[in-house]
Amino acid sequence: MNAGEGQHSYVKNSTYQRGVVNVAKSIIEEEIAKKLDVSSINSFRIADYGCATGHNSFPAIKIITQAITRKISGLASHDHEFSVYFNDNVTNDFNTLFRSLPKNNYYNALGLPGDFHGRLLPKSSLHFAYCSWSLHWLTEAPATALNNGATMYSGNIKDQVYDAYLYQFGKDLGSFLDARAHELVSGGLMTLLIPTVPSFWDPQTEYTLITEINLLGSCLMDMAKEGIIDEAKVDAFKTPLYFATPEELKTIIDNNNNYSIERFEILNNPGKHTLPSVSDRAAFYRAVIEKLIGDHFGTEIIDEFFNRYMKKLAASSVLVNSGNDKSHVTLVVLKRKAN
Amino acid sequence: MNAGEGQHSYVKNSTYQRGVVNVAKSIIEEEIAKKLDVSSINSFRIADYGCATGHNSFPAIKIITQAITRKISGLASHDHEFSVYFNDNVTNDFNTLFRSLPKNNYYNALGLPGDFHGRLLPKSSLHFAYCSWSLHWLTEAPATALNNGATMYSGNIKDQVYDAYLYQFGKDLGSFLDARAHELVSGGLMTLLIPTVPSFWDPQTEYTLITEINLLGSCLMDMAKEGIIDEAKVDAFKTPLYFATPEELKTIIDNNNNYSIERFEILNNPGKHTLPSVSDRAAFYRAVIEKLIGDHFGTEIIDEFFNRYMKKLAASSVLVNSGNDKSHVTLVVLKRKAN
Repeated sequence: MNAGEGQHSYVKNSTYQRGVVNVAKSIIEEEIAKKLDVSSINSFRIADYGCATGHNSFPAIKIITQAITRKISGLASHDHEFSVYFNDNVTNDFNTLFRSLPKNNYYNALGLPGDFHGRLLPKSSLHFAYCSWSLHWLTEAPATALNNGATMYSGNIKDQVYDAYLYQFGKDLGSFLDARAHELVSGGLMTLLIPTVPSFWDPQTEYTLITEINLLGSCLMDMAKEGIIDEAKVDAFKTPLYFATPEELKTIIDNNNNYSIERFEILNNPGKHTLPSVSDRAAFYRAVIEKLIGDHFGTEIIDEFFNRYMKKLAASSVLVNSGNDKSHVTLVVLKRKAN
Repeated sequence: MNAGEGQHSYVKNSTYQRGVVNVAKSIIEEEIAKKLDVSSINSFRIADYGCATGHNSFPAIKIITQAITRKISGLASHDHEFSVYFNDNVTNDFNTLFRSLPKNNYYNALGLPGDFHGRLLPKSSLHFAYCSWSLHWLTEAPATALNNGATMYSGNIKDQVYDAYLYQFGKDLGSFLDARAHELVSGGLMTLLIPTVPSFWDPQTEYTLITEINLLGSCLMDMAKEGIIDEAKVDAFKTPLYFATPEELKTIIDNNNNYSIERFEILNNPGKHTLPSVSDRAAFYRAVIEKLIGDHFGTEIIDEFFNRYMKKLAASSVLVNSGNDKSHVTLVVLKRKAN
């Protein structure tokens, strides 16, 4: 994610992801009201895994803490404190996060740097885990051959490349679930918001996040053909992202015995309508993958690369209309079983 | 403190402060071995208040965690985890801190942004608090008149200005102790390392940290007289630092009823010998107060300012020899009383 708060920053270009929180709000509130045991807890610990610079995290934390506070206020004694752990990789821009923390906050804010595929907090210390729009990032792209300038698998063709990506996604999500199982108390809740795609869409009239990523790949291929970048470098470039189908997601979670599935809902992401123009959509991807592209091909190609991407979006009768985006978001609420 | 890891960074210019840890090591180890109750704790929580970018913090944390591990290893069951909270102001460079964390670390590292004069962690949640070379910073310089280009009080003259600084120091240290009393468990330990000065020294042959700070002030006054900076700005500039005498420090701590004093030792800081040249000593102050000076007078004067300071050190037969530095460090170990 791009650091800071400038024109190309993640802060300024993540309304697509932010829209998700609003849809999830009533479900999170309902699950906390019905299922979180607050009777014997004075010090609540909540974590957001993959918080970036926090701007999509703060509204979610507000929803969670307010829902818990409402539930506690019904108890005879309700003297309580909140600690909120903001997690992301050690290279995340935590300085911007900390300087952006809401004023007069009613919780202790902590930064939790590190890879969320491993354990980051003590055993049975967490009451509520939240993770939005992060689990589609793989720890690494699988070592499989890609064709024709593709930078990842094609969602519609279930070949070996697809299988390799799905395998990596299952492995990474499994590590995440195991690590959180260590950290969560028995009965603790976890809310996951994960971008997903249907198992098939009609490329003549529809597109998904996978289509967009592979369109980025086709821009790289064009630039290689024109001699602007090295074709061997394009062949070696793979995007470490996987957009699961809801069915795949459910299978992986079912296979982890540490949780019961309390909710599993496929949501239509309203965030997709916050990016009406092709330039906004190019800016959205730039905030997310500029570093990935710049590290591999050099930062000097960035402006032209995203400019080409914007033009390709505009030139496609399918992609130009965000109403044709068939991507969705799957919301999962899990409860940690007793050890 | 200067951010990053460059030539003028705090990282590269804080050996003076770092020397303190080595002197304190055996005392911290002994106090943990004798006095920290580890029998019923599986998850240890340790905090360093005022950690800057962590380079002086990591060795201290290693000493503390290893001493606890040695003590636990004598128990029948010793399955345990450590969480370490690195605290500093929200404007601290936590990005450098997190990227500098020791590899393969055996503790969960967390950033704890915020003013340590207030509560930052839940009630009774902390087992060991550490604070080195931070409590001499005041929340604000007192609103008292200073004369002759002085940027703080004179240690040798116990006037109204001195009293106002001492009052502010007592108030700030009191807030710190109260906040930690909330956070520490009963029986929890706290180690403070605070730069201190004798109640009198002979300015003809001796100097202290106070002398050095006021020498910085005289450089500002020279620059004002030459028309380089505005004299009114110099008059308005006050350094928010106080170097207590050990006796003053003891009185303030005695007045706080939350702790028993387990150790109170005046140490000769070996760090002073890590800065043999006047340029090293100027670099040391630059890393600490460059931002304070730059924010008030403008960053364009910085190079010349510290160059003048270096020349003044070299020109003084007293200040040129670090053997004449009569500053010391007071080490205090406190134990949180039962509520």
